[in-house]
Amino acid sequence: MTKKFNNVYVADTYTIASIYEKNGPISNYFDLIYNKDFYYGTDTFEKAEEKMLSNSISKLINKVKLVDSDIDYVIAGDLENQIAASNYAMRDFNIPFLGIFSACATFAEGIYIGANFIEGKGCKRVIVSTSSHNMVAERQFRNPTEYGALKKKTTTLTSTGAASILLTSTKSNIKITSATAGIVQDKGISDVNNMGAVMAIAAADTIKRHLNDLHINADYYDLILTGDLGVYGKEILIEYLKESGIDISLNYDDCGLILYDRKKQPVYAGASGPCSSALVLCSYILNEMKQGKYKKVLVVPTGAIFSATRLFQKSSIPSIAHAIALEAI
Amino acid sequence: MTKKFNNVYVADTYTIASIYEKNGPISNYFDLIYNKDFYYGTDTFEKAEEKMLSNSISKLINKVKLVDSDIDYVIAGDLENQIAASNYAMRDFNIPFLGIFSACATFAEGIYIGANFIEGKGCKRVIVSTSSHNMVAERQFRNPTEYGALKKKTTTLTSTGAASILLTSTKSNIKITSATAGIVQDKGISDVNNMGAVMAIAAADTIKRHLNDLHINADYYDLILTGDLGVYGKEILIEYLKESGIDISLNYDDCGLILYDRKKQPVYAGASGPCSSALVLCSYILNEMKQGKYKKVLVVPTGAIFSATRLFQKSSIPSIAHAIALEAI
Repeated sequence: MTKKFNNVYVADTYTIASIYEKNGPISNYFDLIYNKDFYYGTDTFEKAEEKMLSNSISKLINKVKLVDSDIDYVIAGDLENQIAASNYAMRDFNIPFLGIFSACATFAEGIYIGANFIEGKGCKRVIVSTSSHNMVAERQFRNPTEYGALKKKTTTLTSTGAASILLTSTKSNIKITSATAGIVQDKGISDVNNMGAVMAIAAADTIKRHLNDLHINADYYDLILTGDLGVYGKEILIEYLKESGIDISLNYDDCGLILYDRKKQPVYAGASGPCSSALVLCSYILNEMKQGKYKKVLVVPTGAIFSATRLFQKSSIPSIAHAIALEAI
Repeated sequence: MTKKFNNVYVADTYTIASIYEKNGPISNYFDLIYNKDFYYGTDTFEKAEEKMLSNSISKLINKVKLVDSDIDYVIAGDLENQIAASNYAMRDFNIPFLGIFSACATFAEGIYIGANFIEGKGCKRVIVSTSSHNMVAERQFRNPTEYGALKKKTTTLTSTGAASILLTSTKSNIKITSATAGIVQDKGISDVNNMGAVMAIAAADTIKRHLNDLHINADYYDLILTGDLGVYGKEILIEYLKESGIDISLNYDDCGLILYDRKKQPVYAGASGPCSSALVLCSYILNEMKQGKYKKVLVVPTGAIFSATRLFQKSSIPSIAHAIALEAI
């Protein structure tokens, strides 16, 4: 379902990134970089992720000179089981919390819900947050990094960081113009080392429905941006859409290929994790929109619903993608 | 944050329950009972939960004589890591999906979001769903049942089933009048065998804010109903609220004590799992409201954010509760 919005704006954002992101091409755009280690001043990777998420919220609230009680909701989720980073981080705030999970499309789902709340005059200010942590994801979904397991070249590298965005009904220079909620897709793929292939179908479905619902062509946007398809998933998406007569080859990129430089960094097919699209959108892309490089941008974070338990039961991996349209005004 | 609603109604519900629920006191109120085994015609417990959740949605859509395209969103979540039951079940539908996680308070969070969407005129029909499965929860959070681990008497028993509710803007005999979003609480408790104690503080906080925001007393409601505090958590909540001058001792019960009969069934402190409050609300309670036994009901499902990883790291267990107010009209 595609919703149009007339009263939803981006007030500000706060981004926190780590070592790989510091070494990537857009490191100048982050609000805070912690690249001493992966612990962020805590004693476990999970607590580091929690603290990054918490800090991204508190520092955003400070940045816009507000206090907890000015924020109607925080909507957040992450990759940890029980979205633990978000739930634990929210102990630090006296703000109503709605926990969401859409794998690496979580940030877009949060913006979708928050924008609907604001458009419906249900509230004035919503913070949407997400995080990911390379070491947390490795030991939960793959192998602890210490094992030194080899990787396939189609594997992506989970980004480390947190991003928060403040949505508001007060006019700003970035408007959220519309959004399309995802429908779960499953093409029967079960290769956990090729999530780009798993998720490309979800991005294709959401982009097609978005363009159809609004009666626009792909070139309506100066930039279409998927979340973390990586270099191979990106090719697959272009092919999928070509089959439907949609050409995005000229105005399309993937956040996973913007956050890291595959030629210089050991990041396989690119960056992944809910934080990838959130970091890229909330730093580099919004900045370029404000600078006039892009006027209309469609961000389509993609999520693979990878469950280790289900994989052992020989289930394939479903995926979903939500689309958010932004406009510099 | 407490929101008042003027245009949100319950169109209908569909409930599916299993063996323990069949043997409990309200078994006559469920739409479907499958008590042959815990597999529900599949070959794993996880696939059984997925199929129950999927069936609760498809059978609800059939019951109200609609089709997929009449439903604007399904909002769902469950206890499985990556809310896998919901995500996998949603492969069966061509309906936009928003995945949520608030542990055993998930159903209330879904109703909160769905009601806001409808009230804001963002859509007309939302299905909110949740599920839980005893064997799935045991092996994910505790020990596989086959191990025969002993239980403390403060332990609750995760219910098995799925429930779906259709919210609509079309007037019906059950109105959702208001709702309060939860704020994460943490009193430093880390006893995984006493979730009632963990969650009572969250219920107390949400009930207090709900009553304060609406300027009403606890006796405004004919019935206040928590989700799965169990027999000990129930006592703790009554004490917590007494300290704030709020007496709920006369009009309060817990869904975990309605779904099962502790005197006749081996269920320790009562039922738990997101499905407990969803099953009780969507079957017995709504029926009693329609029959005139209760006019105003406040349902307050509670969730403990129990993460095994965090427990090994000596973290305490945060909790949250969301409140939904319903009225028979």
